[in-house]
Amino acid sequence: MRNAFHEGLDHTSDQLVEMTRLAGSAIARATTALLDADLAVAESVIAADEQIDRIQRELDELALDMLARQQPVATDLRTIVTSMRMSADLERMGDLARHVAKVARRRYPDSAVPATLRATLLEMGQVAERIVAKAGSVIASRDVALAVQLEQDDDEMDRLHRQLFNQLLSGNWPYGMEAAVDITLVGRYYERFADHAVSVARRVVYLVTGEWHESYDPTAAHTP
Amino acid sequence: MRNAFHEGLDHTSDQLVEMTRLAGSAIARATTALLDADLAVAESVIAADEQIDRIQRELDELALDMLARQQPVATDLRTIVTSMRMSADLERMGDLARHVAKVARRRYPDSAVPATLRATLLEMGQVAERIVAKAGSVIASRDVALAVQLEQDDDEMDRLHRQLFNQLLSGNWPYGMEAAVDITLVGRYYERFADHAVSVARRVVYLVTGEWHESYDPTAAHTP
Repeated sequence: MRNAFHEGLDHTSDQLVEMTRLAGSAIARATTALLDADLAVAESVIAADEQIDRIQRELDELALDMLARQQPVATDLRTIVTSMRMSADLERMGDLARHVAKVARRRYPDSAVPATLRATLLEMGQVAERIVAKAGSVIASRDVALAVQLEQDDDEMDRLHRQLFNQLLSGNWPYGMEAAVDITLVGRYYERFADHAVSVARRVVYLVTGEWHESYDPTAAHTP
Repeated sequence: MRNAFHEGLDHTSDQLVEMTRLAGSAIARATTALLDADLAVAESVIAADEQIDRIQRELDELALDMLARQQPVATDLRTIVTSMRMSADLERMGDLARHVAKVARRRYPDSAVPATLRATLLEMGQVAERIVAKAGSVIASRDVALAVQLEQDDDEMDRLHRQLFNQLLSGNWPYGMEAAVDITLVGRYYERFADHAVSVARRVVYLVTGEWHESYDPTAAHTP
């Protein structure tokens, strides 16, 4: 029998999936804004972040309410606390998409991305979109095998991030310091976006298996 | 009368203060490693981060244990959940200090900091040290007036961060791209370090007053 408590847990799971959808849309559009120097798209990403923030606040209130009223223990308690952490990760991913959009806006009407780096940044955007979509599927399905795939996507993001730095440091950079600073920051934002998506997937694995991979540090920097 | 539950809360508060002490020591030594190109100090910062991570894990376990056994409501519940968020902020501050130390290590035996930027980065290190020390005092004293001071320190950090970028973008940068990338990342690490310290102080204010300043976004980027 379903009760109010399990309805609360189901609602939380649905809203976490919704957050992955919003974060995915945000990073996809931020990438477009960045590559096409599209101000309207950049502004829409910046404005839409409030929606993700609002869902996080609602989920936090719901979690506190469930903790206070239902006094859960064991798995239910772990699920609620872990959900709060997942929503914090997803909220941060929204921020990072917004940061990318802000770089696009700052450089408008110019593009922040030199032509030689467009392909790499396009790929970073695609990996970011893919990894957050998979994080949503992992939340919805609790599929541990799929969660492992996110690690590979994250490795791919790290590879692209290193490639971006190698291109920056290749000794031939005619685009000036401002572009170098922007690319450095944007690269970091994409890489952190993927880290948080992996963190979300790891938290689902933790809920399903009870195991947390200590050796893995989702907050580690992968800068050169 | 003190009971096991309130002893748990007191222990948590003490350990959060200890985390501010460790994060403060880490950022101070990371700044030294960076400015003096001191490899031994850099290595010690990188190794010591595990200590902060361990305290966070212990506090998380204690929090889950208190939630399950004591089934707290109202203020006690809010205190435990907020403490988990503070320890996450402080753990992240340790990571950021480690990231600074890793930049120092990567560039050894060279210094990652060109002579013209030493003064600015020294000041950023000092503000970081000061703001985390105040965060510790705020946790220990629950002094809301002191918490407001951290906002000013954060404004000072933002000013220094902008100054760093202005120096980078001044049109006269003879130090090469690698130094530019390092300085961009290091500037971001210090700025995020201060953001998380402000977040800790805000959470204490929230516990004391019940008010959260929505207008304030501790996770916002202050990049140019």
